[in-house]
Amino acid sequence: MRAVGYQHPASLDHPQHSLDSQELPDPQDLLNSQHLADPEYQLSPEYLVDPKYLVDPEYLVDIELPDPSPGADDLLVRVEAVAVNPVDVKVRRRELPPPGAWRLLGWDAVGRVEALGQRAGGFAVGDRVWYAGPLNRAGCNAELQLVDWRLVARAPQSLTSAEAAALPLTSLTAWELLFDRLRLPQGSDAAAGQVLLVVAGAGGVGSMVLQLARQLTGLTLVATASQPEGQAWARHCGAHQVIDHKLPLRTQLAALGIEAVQWVASLSHTDQHFDALVDLLAPQGALALIDDPNPAAINLLSLKRKSLSLHWELMFTRSLFQTADMAAQGGILQRVAELVDENRLFSSCRQILGPINAANLTAAHRQLAGQLAGQSSIGKIVLEGWD
Amino acid sequence: MRAVGYQHPASLDHPQHSLDSQELPDPQDLLNSQHLADPEYQLSPEYLVDPKYLVDPEYLVDIELPDPSPGADDLLVRVEAVAVNPVDVKVRRRELPPPGAWRLLGWDAVGRVEALGQRAGGFAVGDRVWYAGPLNRAGCNAELQLVDWRLVARAPQSLTSAEAAALPLTSLTAWELLFDRLRLPQGSDAAAGQVLLVVAGAGGVGSMVLQLARQLTGLTLVATASQPEGQAWARHCGAHQVIDHKLPLRTQLAALGIEAVQWVASLSHTDQHFDALVDLLAPQGALALIDDPNPAAINLLSLKRKSLSLHWELMFTRSLFQTADMAAQGGILQRVAELVDENRLFSSCRQILGPINAANLTAAHRQLAGQLAGQSSIGKIVLEGWD
Repeated sequence: MRAVGYQHPASLDHPQHSLDSQELPDPQDLLNSQHLADPEYQLSPEYLVDPKYLVDPEYLVDIELPDPSPGADDLLVRVEAVAVNPVDVKVRRRELPPPGAWRLLGWDAVGRVEALGQRAGGFAVGDRVWYAGPLNRAGCNAELQLVDWRLVARAPQSLTSAEAAALPLTSLTAWELLFDRLRLPQGSDAAAGQVLLVVAGAGGVGSMVLQLARQLTGLTLVATASQPEGQAWARHCGAHQVIDHKLPLRTQLAALGIEAVQWVASLSHTDQHFDALVDLLAPQGALALIDDPNPAAINLLSLKRKSLSLHWELMFTRSLFQTADMAAQGGILQRVAELVDENRLFSSCRQILGPINAANLTAAHRQLAGQLAGQSSIGKIVLEGWD
Repeated sequence: MRAVGYQHPASLDHPQHSLDSQELPDPQDLLNSQHLADPEYQLSPEYLVDPKYLVDPEYLVDIELPDPSPGADDLLVRVEAVAVNPVDVKVRRRELPPPGAWRLLGWDAVGRVEALGQRAGGFAVGDRVWYAGPLNRAGCNAELQLVDWRLVARAPQSLTSAEAAALPLTSLTAWELLFDRLRLPQGSDAAAGQVLLVVAGAGGVGSMVLQLARQLTGLTLVATASQPEGQAWARHCGAHQVIDHKLPLRTQLAALGIEAVQWVASLSHTDQHFDALVDLLAPQGALALIDDPNPAAINLLSLKRKSLSLHWELMFTRSLFQTADMAAQGGILQRVAELVDENRLFSSCRQILGPINAANLTAAHRQLAGQLAGQSSIGKIVLEGWD
């Protein structure tokens, strides 16, 4: 099968290659992903040598790999479209496969079921499915991918594969954040009169937090976005009000008649906003976060006086730990597909960069790297089909 | 009325007194309690001069003060018994009243209603009531105290005032921690099969977390206590299993067949146990805490991989911020009184130190100071009546 991936630099045969493997971290240590949640971890300078493909942590390669075979719980999926996410870039920068092996990124896919393991219930060959999948297996940047059936649902019928590919990872993150972590009640009257502040509301996850909260709760939604285009997008996704996270939050909220917020979804740059968010939170309020804040900028004790709570959401937790409730992810994706087909949710796909290949994925990762460095982002970037 | 309190050192007329008021923090800054949640804050060395009563932050004085008059929402209560809590010592060390004023400590009281404000509904003169009360008003170390009726309930009929005085603050803390912060469901089948680990289960709050969780949920309760007497007390309070927090937690839990816990109530020395608790928590688990951990010992990012949440409980939040739901505290105390009178909860009173006066309160505070410094503690210390 065709695929797009990257290798341990020591696997590369290049005349200018002069790495001393003694100086490299143990690739097994890197592979086990324990660095993923560690913002302190950066690629060591040993990797940042010439040639070009070692200098550039966004560099990816078109490769040919053997077709995989499904295990008992697996679906084998022929991938039709994929989206990219900040996690791709984080893993690319922080994780190295063992020498000789390839690491495939990509955790947002739509494709057709091509074969099933004997325990993979509820699906048939030819079903068009969508999923984000687990972090600790080969990603979806490949013609064929294996994924545990409990993480999968049928894709919405009303969307193209490209449109649908924008949704799984961000919908799962947004749903889990709202309903599993913050445990918000559902229903149009649920939490009516309370305010959810969505920091970075125009981004990929923000788009879905706003859509889901608008459709399934009675919350008043205030999003932050710094650019006019992002502000318009956040409103389109369901924000009742939009403010600019580059200006003081309290002043802008006060101008809207809002003195405190009961809920915060802090989706980006939590460390920069933390003190202001704690100041704005109502007593007994809750803040959910998904990013990698600098711990030194987070004064945990500042949460005590108001009895606040802090909730991490990582979309990969259920699959990484094979939790007893991991099939909840299939259930969420099924419910999201229904809401899409009822025209209650729409795709956050904003750019289709062309077919799935190394050049297009590298271009997509460069945009993500800019976002991680602080550039504002709107919706999702998708790749579709194979050359 | 008689009372027990302390003053700003500058108010004291003593020949050896040589404080330079220029060196003192602004007493108003201290009075507003914002330092309460700040473990970095310590009394500055300027206070720690001779004479004896300036050296000793546990030093308290018998005084005579004017009788207070109830505001519209107040009950005026004639105090019959009080308990002491670590918060008394923390406030004594961290907060100074303005020069000339007295600060009265004490947030656990049983007494008789002597007068009512016009909005103080549901009570009558002569009612025996119990409450913890708010941090930002005069405490209960006085013959007469004002307290907002929404924080109060009738005391259980089956307990003496001394026995009952041990319960309000710890019951409120434990109830809020379990049912408002962790949002555990109630019912004998609720959360059955899940494990709650209660660190410092033999202490004041631990005693009530164990009793309430045993009576109102189906959780398996594992308490930690380091001394045999505390271990027996934790079992008496409802722990199914008891382990020693001075030995490795994982090994002891594994010996009980427990590989992970879904819930943690970390009631003391959270900073010392944090890494071990995160290691033990099941994915999607939750940790509640009430103490003042050293932030440098808390790696917040370690919570991300498992999508864990962290919940502060401060019993004073509702009253400090006059939240819309502050009457929930009266409701909790009413429910606890019912459970006591149904013989489903018992008093955690373990010592009655005699009548309420400066000598006995100072002795009680010394015991609390030892607990804050790491000595193990069992149940509560109570004072009853007036000389």
